[in-house]
Amino acid sequence: MDPSQVKIPELKNLTIENITENVIKINSNNPSPRFKYILERLVTHLHDFARETRLSTSEWMAGIQFLTATGQICTDVRQEFILLSDILGLSLLIDSIDHPKPPSSTEGTVLGPFHTHDANDLPHGDNMSHDPAGEPLLVLCTVKDVSGAPIPGAKIDIWETDSSGKYDVQHADRAEPDGRCVMRSDTDGNFWFKAIVPVPYPIPNDGPVGQLLQRLQRHCWRPSHMHFMFEKPGYDHLITALYLRGDPYETSDAVFGVKESLIIDLGVVGKEEIEKYGVKEGTKLLKYDFVLVGEEESKKLREERSKEALEKLGRRVKIVEGLPVPDVD
Amino acid sequence: MDPSQVKIPELKNLTIENITENVIKINSNNPSPRFKYILERLVTHLHDFARETRLSTSEWMAGIQFLTATGQICTDVRQEFILLSDILGLSLLIDSIDHPKPPSSTEGTVLGPFHTHDANDLPHGDNMSHDPAGEPLLVLCTVKDVSGAPIPGAKIDIWETDSSGKYDVQHADRAEPDGRCVMRSDTDGNFWFKAIVPVPYPIPNDGPVGQLLQRLQRHCWRPSHMHFMFEKPGYDHLITALYLRGDPYETSDAVFGVKESLIIDLGVVGKEEIEKYGVKEGTKLLKYDFVLVGEEESKKLREERSKEALEKLGRRVKIVEGLPVPDVD
Repeated sequence: MDPSQVKIPELKNLTIENITENVIKINSNNPSPRFKYILERLVTHLHDFARETRLSTSEWMAGIQFLTATGQICTDVRQEFILLSDILGLSLLIDSIDHPKPPSSTEGTVLGPFHTHDANDLPHGDNMSHDPAGEPLLVLCTVKDVSGAPIPGAKIDIWETDSSGKYDVQHADRAEPDGRCVMRSDTDGNFWFKAIVPVPYPIPNDGPVGQLLQRLQRHCWRPSHMHFMFEKPGYDHLITALYLRGDPYETSDAVFGVKESLIIDLGVVGKEEIEKYGVKEGTKLLKYDFVLVGEEESKKLREERSKEALEKLGRRVKIVEGLPVPDVD
Repeated sequence: MDPSQVKIPELKNLTIENITENVIKINSNNPSPRFKYILERLVTHLHDFARETRLSTSEWMAGIQFLTATGQICTDVRQEFILLSDILGLSLLIDSIDHPKPPSSTEGTVLGPFHTHDANDLPHGDNMSHDPAGEPLLVLCTVKDVSGAPIPGAKIDIWETDSSGKYDVQHADRAEPDGRCVMRSDTDGNFWFKAIVPVPYPIPNDGPVGQLLQRLQRHCWRPSHMHFMFEKPGYDHLITALYLRGDPYETSDAVFGVKESLIIDLGVVGKEEIEKYGVKEGTKLLKYDFVLVGEEESKKLREERSKEALEKLGRRVKIVEGLPVPDVD
């Protein structure tokens, strides 16, 4: 790039006091108001963090090495940065911000690092977990809109661990997807399948995130749960999970995902279910009615809450498509 | 870990409003006051960043992917996270905070990602760059304390690019270190060597950091410079560099490193130098007198500036060994 073409402030003699405004200035040459705003807040917080902690060179280097190790342990089936975001509460926060829920709808929660895109499409009633050591579970669900009308043809991703607390991708010898499936709701908004009773499990703790938890004297356990993700044009994407009541980690989830409305009591199948779904007597039963929010309602809510939040923060921004950008008027 | 042994707040139903205080609480079980303070500020800034930007799930995922790619491109000889820190102004800020300089001493600047630990020890007068295309340069330096007394036996790391603007480690066929050396100052605080005239160069721009710069419409050039790093027990570690006056990127360094006091005018060797150092007529000459700060003075200054800065910020902390920790009294 020809330096004579570079329209930037003179950057020299930068100090603790003036470096932030200058970095923000040079980052503001890009054409996207949204990216400009994100970079402005990122640089401000990064620098304020260093100024408030008087971060030392050796602490900075420890941070560089931690982030490098976090990136390097990632593979196609392991996402340590999502895990880091999860244990710092960022993931839950982002979901809460981006997917506001009116009171009558199903709350969202953390996606976690174990969703994959290779799960098999299963017909209703099929078995999504082939772990013979798992405790059999029948799952009967509906998906409706906030008015109570069934939503047919929603794509539902479902995933859980095996009875040892491991997702399929955590087994080195994984030949094909298991403990996960994709279903579509029927015309009445129903979907049902066989699975196993979820168990508590430790998040992967043999990497940088595990070391951080150890240093923080935090445990690495998640309470028993099953993940659900709903997609259907016209509705806000729902990433959620159902948690078993009474789990020993119910109030100390390592990734902060548990919400009262997502805690369920397992029942036991009755005669009707045994006959209708071909399950054995004593099989545990999970029933839940999911409620999706319409895309328009969700958009409106996102916009309203953004406006409200940014006004409270006293920031001079305007809201465009639900997201703040600098107010240059 | 036995959950009944876990002394943590009840973590359930976390919201945009209450998640930060709860994550800080659960992170506060570790025994280090300093680590507690760093994590408190980190979580606060991370969450405030998300709240102020109303960061969307897709933007968060783009961030996760960016950080992952940044970690994955790192090797033994490439440190993309340092580069990221450099172009965001964090590296210069950290150096300014951690290595405060009294007016009479040599200012510090960014370390950059190209220092290695395998440079050869060279005797004074030796040639540290074997690039035949480089313009020969004679470097004559002294290192003294703030009172003007010479500092003998200081370990000095010196590194620069070749004439193509690449460090040795950027050549895939690098057989041994070149363009870098380690020297020790003599009894009079002198050190001198042969090198080549530094040239401007682009920082590595084929990775995530290069993509970010491009998206920000920022150039990736650094002005011509030579790195110096000084270590000697009893003195504050000095990481610095000397910049050539009039470089086209003098006021737009991609990593914000240029300071007026570190800009030098190259001369040309005179008769005396030609004879004494065995260089050819017309050889360019770099002369500089470095001044190191005593460890005690540096410590005192760091402590004073930390106190002053944190008081200004109005944070309830105490300063221990120059670094803030929570004030629990």
